[in-house]
Amino acid sequence: MEVDYSKIKTIGFDADDTLWVNETYFREAEDKFADLLTGYETKNKIDQELFKTEIKNLELYGYGIKGFMLSMVESALELSNNQISQATILEILNLGKEMINQEVELLEGVEEVLAKLKDKYRLIVLTKGDLLDQERKLERSNLLHYFHHVEVLSDKKEVNYMNLLEHLEIDTKEFLMIGNSLKSDVLPLINIGAEAIHIPFHTTWQHEEVSVDKNDYKYLKINKLTDILKYLK
Amino acid sequence: MEVDYSKIKTIGFDADDTLWVNETYFREAEDKFADLLTGYETKNKIDQELFKTEIKNLELYGYGIKGFMLSMVESALELSNNQISQATILEILNLGKEMINQEVELLEGVEEVLAKLKDKYRLIVLTKGDLLDQERKLERSNLLHYFHHVEVLSDKKEVNYMNLLEHLEIDTKEFLMIGNSLKSDVLPLINIGAEAIHIPFHTTWQHEEVSVDKNDYKYLKINKLTDILKYLK
Repeated sequence: MEVDYSKIKTIGFDADDTLWVNETYFREAEDKFADLLTGYETKNKIDQELFKTEIKNLELYGYGIKGFMLSMVESALELSNNQISQATILEILNLGKEMINQEVELLEGVEEVLAKLKDKYRLIVLTKGDLLDQERKLERSNLLHYFHHVEVLSDKKEVNYMNLLEHLEIDTKEFLMIGNSLKSDVLPLINIGAEAIHIPFHTTWQHEEVSVDKNDYKYLKINKLTDILKYLK
Repeated sequence: MEVDYSKIKTIGFDADDTLWVNETYFREAEDKFADLLTGYETKNKIDQELFKTEIKNLELYGYGIKGFMLSMVESALELSNNQISQATILEILNLGKEMINQEVELLEGVEEVLAKLKDKYRLIVLTKGDLLDQERKLERSNLLHYFHHVEVLSDKKEVNYMNLLEHLEIDTKEFLMIGNSLKSDVLPLINIGAEAIHIPFHTTWQHEEVSVDKNDYKYLKINKLTDILKYLK
């Protein structure tokens, strides 16, 4: 696809699975959760029911580890018909605490890309999820000094982006968003008239998957973050 | 105390227990939690242990209802020596969900004060806690239109205020903060050279209590929000 990013002045980066590994840890936690529930249901059924509980609670809890922990506890009670042991519930809580304490693992080329872009563009981080979780990860990532601004949004819909761009006085046409989620980091931006680049991560949470006719949307898809350096001089 | 607020251009309002009732619902939840644990420990011991668990988890979970829910579950397991029934754990989760769904009850005079101040000052909301919880409460409060900006902070320490004022390009000397917590809404502001007004709420979470020599700090203490109209013309 031919692209022209000469107008771009500000670049927004998603964080989870764009700058650092995230979804992988949720997948690992789901596997451990299924192990704890072994005997009550099949792995497949356990995965499905946990996902259903998460989606049911999403409006209440929002994105992030704490909501995930609460949904695991609820789901364990439900799947076991209240038979799951108290000790196992404590293990579920500890599983979540480990996730919160997880080290931050940067994705390949992140530092190189940010270092090359930071003098020419205004770089910002736009992430959704739990405020404290995201601030903690940014702190641990040692990437903060590359960014002019960090915003944690409760959701990444068109209205969230529009409000934020207005607040930061960023012209929509001069804004480029980069992220791994078509649903959260790409489509809403295209819809409001900004630019977006999609970098898929190998693992995507079911809730972030969308089915759209991709021909309706004009955006660049690349394989790895360093590829953006070919398009942004 | 004699005060001069003639330089003030921006007023920051805390939200929980300044604009609307909050702590009361936590206190009610703690009472219900103690009822659920009846038989395992005294009410006093249950309160103490829950508080200890909350403080222990504060760095991990931050402020807000979800962290409170997780601490209640953990505390129930601990206080009962893993004997608490699975059905009771589900009740604890439901107790938290009710808190999240709680209607917003504005404190006396809030609308009147905001309406009178909004044309003369730039009004902002500065609250700490869970991003989604606070956005939801603001939405339900119908107060959003009075505010130029809303910021949910992960904490309210001096550094949080300094970063925010810098980001919003607010001169510290032209900023006045109003809130119910001496620790979070008053002292850090005085320390960075801004102004602050303290309006105590009848209930204060133990963690928000501070012991300082109040003579060391110059701030106005008033009884109810409408009293600020005497000082801000």
